[in-house]
Amino acid sequence: MGLTQTMAVAVGSLKKGKRNLITDVEGVLVGHCTLSQGEQQTGVTAVLPHPGDIFHDKVMAAVQVFNGFGKTMGLVQLEEMGSIEAPILLTNTLSAGVVYDAVVRIMLEQNEDIGNTTGTVNPIVCECNDGEINQIRGLFVTEDHARQALANCGQEFAEGAVGAGRGMLCHQCKGGIGSASRVIELDGREYTVGALVLTNHGKLRDLTVEGRPVGEAYLASIEDREDKGSCIMLLATDIPLSERQLRRMCRRAVIGLHRLGSYMGNGSGELCIGFTTANRLPHYSQRDVLPLGMLHDDKMNLVFRAAAEAVEESVLSSLLHSQGMADRHGKWVPSLADILTKRPR
Amino acid sequence: MGLTQTMAVAVGSLKKGKRNLITDVEGVLVGHCTLSQGEQQTGVTAVLPHPGDIFHDKVMAAVQVFNGFGKTMGLVQLEEMGSIEAPILLTNTLSAGVVYDAVVRIMLEQNEDIGNTTGTVNPIVCECNDGEINQIRGLFVTEDHARQALANCGQEFAEGAVGAGRGMLCHQCKGGIGSASRVIELDGREYTVGALVLTNHGKLRDLTVEGRPVGEAYLASIEDREDKGSCIMLLATDIPLSERQLRRMCRRAVIGLHRLGSYMGNGSGELCIGFTTANRLPHYSQRDVLPLGMLHDDKMNLVFRAAAEAVEESVLSSLLHSQGMADRHGKWVPSLADILTKRPR
Amino acid sequence: MGLTQTMAVAVGSLKKGKRNLITDVEGVLVGHCTLSQGEQQTGVTAVLPHPGDIFHDKVMAAVQVFNGFGKTMGLVQLEEMGSIEAPILLTNTLSAGVVYDAVVRIMLEQNEDIGNTTGTVNPIVCECNDGEINQIRGLFVTEDHARQALANCGQEFAEGAVGAGRGMLCHQCKGGIGSASRVIELDGREYTVGALVLTNHGKLRDLTVEGRPVGEAYLASIEDREDKGSCIMLLATDIPLSERQLRRMCRRAVIGLHRLGSYMGNGSGELCIGFTTANRLPHYSQRDVLPLGMLHDDKMNLVFRAAAEAVEESVLSSLLHSQGMADRHGKWVPSLADILTKRPR
Amino acid sequence: MGLTQTMAVAVGSLKKGKRNLITDVEGVLVGHCTLSQGEQQTGVTAVLPHPGDIFHDKVMAAVQVFNGFGKTMGLVQLEEMGSIEAPILLTNTLSAGVVYDAVVRIMLEQNEDIGNTTGTVNPIVCECNDGEINQIRGLFVTEDHARQALANCGQEFAEGAVGAGRGMLCHQCKGGIGSASRVIELDGREYTVGALVLTNHGKLRDLTVEGRPVGEAYLASIEDREDKGSCIMLLATDIPLSERQLRRMCRRAVIGLHRLGSYMGNGSGELCIGFTTANRLPHYSQRDVLPLGMLHDDKMNLVFRAAAEAVEESVLSSLLHSQGMADRHGKWVPSLADILTKRPR
Repeated sequence: MGLTQTMAVAVGSLKKGKRNLITDVEGVLVGHCTLSQGEQQTGVTAVLPHPGDIFHDKVMAAVQVFNGFGKTMGLVQLEEMGSIEAPILLTNTLSAGVVYDAVVRIMLEQNEDIGNTTGTVNPIVCECNDGEINQIRGLFVTEDHARQALANCGQEFAEGAVGAGRGMLCHQCKGGIGSASRVIELDGREYTVGALVLTNHGKLRDLTVEGRPVGEAYLASIEDREDKGSCIMLLATDIPLSERQLRRMCRRAVIGLHRLGSYMGNGSGELCIGFTTANRLPHYSQRDVLPLGMLHDDKMNLVFRAAAEAVEESVLSSLLHSQGMADRHGKWVPSLADILTKRPR
Repeated sequence: MGLTQTMAVAVGSLKKGKRNLITDVEGVLVGHCTLSQGEQQTGVTAVLPHPGDIFHDKVMAAVQVFNGFGKTMGLVQLEEMGSIEAPILLTNTLSAGVVYDAVVRIMLEQNEDIGNTTGTVNPIVCECNDGEINQIRGLFVTEDHARQALANCGQEFAEGAVGAGRGMLCHQCKGGIGSASRVIELDGREYTVGALVLTNHGKLRDLTVEGRPVGEAYLASIEDREDKGSCIMLLATDIPLSERQLRRMCRRAVIGLHRLGSYMGNGSGELCIGFTTANRLPHYSQRDVLPLGMLHDDKMNLVFRAAAEAVEESVLSSLLHSQGMADRHGKWVPSLADILTKRPR
Repeated sequence: MGLTQTMAVAVGSLKKGKRNLITDVEGVLVGHCTLSQGEQQTGVTAVLPHPGDIFHDKVMAAVQVFNGFGKTMGLVQLEEMGSIEAPILLTNTLSAGVVYDAVVRIMLEQNEDIGNTTGTVNPIVCECNDGEINQIRGLFVTEDHARQALANCGQEFAEGAVGAGRGMLCHQCKGGIGSASRVIELDGREYTVGALVLTNHGKLRDLTVEGRPVGEAYLASIEDREDKGSCIMLLATDIPLSERQLRRMCRRAVIGLHRLGSYMGNGSGELCIGFTTANRLPHYSQRDVLPLGMLHDDKMNLVFRAAAEAVEESVLSSLLHSQGMADRHGKWVPSLADILTKRPR
Repeated sequence: MGLTQTMAVAVGSLKKGKRNLITDVEGVLVGHCTLSQGEQQTGVTAVLPHPGDIFHDKVMAAVQVFNGFGKTMGLVQLEEMGSIEAPILLTNTLSAGVVYDAVVRIMLEQNEDIGNTTGTVNPIVCECNDGEINQIRGLFVTEDHARQALANCGQEFAEGAVGAGRGMLCHQCKGGIGSASRVIELDGREYTVGALVLTNHGKLRDLTVEGRPVGEAYLASIEDREDKGSCIMLLATDIPLSERQLRRMCRRAVIGLHRLGSYMGNGSGELCIGFTTANRLPHYSQRDVLPLGMLHDDKMNLVFRAAAEAVEESVLSSLLHSQGMADRHGKWVPSLADILTKRPR
């Protein structure tokens, strides 16, 4: 049972998936590698769109950037080709290059055709700046950490201050990785929309949980911080959506952030990548014309609501799964769970 | 004093402008022409960026489309040239062509060079579908109504079910025109961000005022409606912003909608047009290089918050200034003020 | 036989369609209404994506704006919904509002559900400024002219100084309407890409036909004009393309312009609208998930080449079908055919 | 004297800069590191927007993606913030991660505030796939090569098969790095537009030099290749342009490609990054409102022509400066200079 349920925080009205995680979308897998020794408070999180050969069996995808103060790699080709062909990796901002290079090396090992008889590969690396807690100038993340995150991928995975989320701050509380899912019915069968977020944005005074400005009483006891972070949002689904529809779904991800009190600060990069496992794009094809599925747009309202709810709950989940800790200057970063239950540190 | 204050609805923390209207931005003027006889429940609202010769003394502008299910005219050139060179008119969806033509005729009358010794003119016409209350197939709006709205332009103007807002629905309550403003300090002097919205979006069950799901108790007493509307948002400011910065400001407009409970439904067009009276673009210029002002981006957080607060309060204001009325099928459209004060109809 | 063949101008290497017109794409129809009396030198051109009920049986579509100095209407919704649901009309810039209103009235007549039991309709009206030849301030185009253009729609249609092209200038020669098509093979069967352009852009000194700067010798005999025009490009196909792929196809339209010598001048609006008759989007659907076709992207090169060639030949065709005439100031506007054959006027 | 002059290839009509290189824009510097041993045929090219502290004294910038089949890094933030704050590095596709990481390390060394008292840094790394000539799977490029390219930066630099251009193919000839510049007059003084390209696109049969299909005679003697490459285009200027205007300038870069015969193939990524040294954005500022310069848009035609000409000549220059060589399969890659002078290999 997710902590959001334990904490009696209800988000929205739609049915939740079995695990209430992005992995409720059949085939999606998530894994972490966490560094948490001394000033090394960072890590890598990997998301596999499906367990098979992603390069040769791509998933249809789209992206929406809300605030582009960020260094996410791979979006240019994702938009142009409407597909994801490599695992999605998340890490800290200054380690994006190393992790990108790691994905290149892994994809070359797994695919002899890349850079040989076929073209290259487009890794997707997302990032937030965990420099308040992690000594980000240390560049601690290595190729091996990316490999471990990939090796750890499974349907069950931890939330909170783990993987890429290890050193993140959200609404001045401890943030990190959160996930949730929603189930909707189309043509008489159930489909799933799952979200995974890396939260590193927002101010405490703006945090609104179920309409309550929960942080106000706590404000006096912590020092103010500027909103310099970011929020990476991933949406997975098994609903047949076109690239245009995936982008429309992604646009609703930010609703969850706004309902919780984000103002998308100047230095806070926000973007959402969405993909569907239902529309596959083969790297090689004997047929020129491929069959696809697409939802009638009149039904998109259900998808929009599922995406917004799943993201909102994911952000909350990232907060509620994280414990308080000191930042690298010794300032306390509280846990939202402690705030909500009025537990002093 | 605005009704939002009367109703004791507080939005945000920033200082409000003198009138708490978009016209707090020096030079901006607003006027309505309202049709409210029988099945004619529609109108035109005009917004002048400044009282002078707009064509020859353009204002710098940008636009952000959040959901493009809408027919707003003039955005292609607004984006390309980064300017507004004609009054902005709002009306019902099917009357956009007539109003566009009216602006063309008025601009030709006022400017002998247009289409003669210089190029043409780019009118901006925004719209929402008021077909639940207005018999929109009647095409009641004429050129003369557009002229009246322009003639009525002033610093003081009515909010609620007036002008283009006459027949609009918002969160299944009576919507329409709303406005608000915020004042922020930069380089030791005060600047203003003003918003004007045409609200026609959302569902009652999602409406959240100050965190409270206000419509729930009322839900049983009204029939459900699909979210088929739209929300046009205008932001004016006297802060020197570049086109890129104006677009960034516009992107925060939607925060106000989301905090009140909008999910940006499939058929609900949402967009924001922003302009600054501080950066003027002369139609003719003897000098090739023109001086401009631009805000240091680190200060954009203040602008973002002002825009989000002003839009949120504008939407509320459009609701609180509107009285309940029957739609064209005889179904009651409640007033939010009645709901909040538990007044039965 | 097209004039381009007569003039022995060869564009590209791909097979041409039967008529070498956009109407080689099965179902597409084109019609004109031309005004050519005295200072009235303008008109309307209509393009039907298919001969049936376009509102209830929409075609998948996309758009690419290259230079947005233009007033084309309907693009916001076209992009958001990926579809065209009304005839596409072309006319002069200042008549766009009247023609838009005409389409609204016609669609209301033909569809009782619009604005009543379903939403509104999104007309597409494209324009160029024909003010050098036509007295554009006269606002000569009426609703009736739009109706006539629609009534005249058929598979055969005139090119050159007809319909919306009546008063247009291209590379300082007489421009107007041009069209061409290309046939490519996919999965062992033939598909067609057709183009129709409204040409009103470019300078004579830049005009390059088959690599030859054809206008140079003629330059001395005409007065220079600024490049203030535009070029509207339409691409139709029966290849199953996704919205993303349609947009990619549209992006190649401009290759044709550039090869002929366009520099996409500041005041010259260039955009391309593309649609496929192979992917239909029903307004009402009992099934939530709809089947679509999509081309394997490796095969897009053929589509790109077909689009670029068809547009290049269309522009040339608009020039070669037009006869020289005096502009409204009495200055001679030469015919490219005369220039190429060295015929003095 | 540039080789294009030697070869008597004239592009356009505008005045060329002193060196006819991008470094004619005051302050811009370029350097290479070339690997050319055995199967290592690759490298790094660095472009400095100015010789000072780029992070704290950013240049205003914009980007236009024409075909997004590419892995260029840093564009998301470049678009959002309208600035470049680090050197621009070019390399082969699979080495982008390593080079990105190198820039991060160098910027950390040079700036103690990054990731400590201020935010992170946004490196720009552009790439093309040189896998036909270079054994790209070898991942030969290291951090040290990036450092060498930066160390080699100066106003004079080599063109052709050097730096990142070492292993590139253009129109099936040997491509690589090319550069050119144009000088225009505004307000009575001279300004410069400079281009630098990394060419790796196109087919020989489409290559058109001064309107002549130069490769046709040669076609029989070489094996056909698919157009799988890319073209990176950089434009620098000292004209005060806004972000919007920089993007408009970038959009004209592709005119040069198209005039030479590019069809922007499916797998051929094309994009242009533009910056102006005239509008600087300080990282820290005591004043909130900053002064900027902006060109009157009526004068943009000159800028467009300069950009298009400079890019066209740069592409030709990259071809004319490159000598023929065998690819990694032993197939001959001819030099365009040899083709134009009919020299057999």
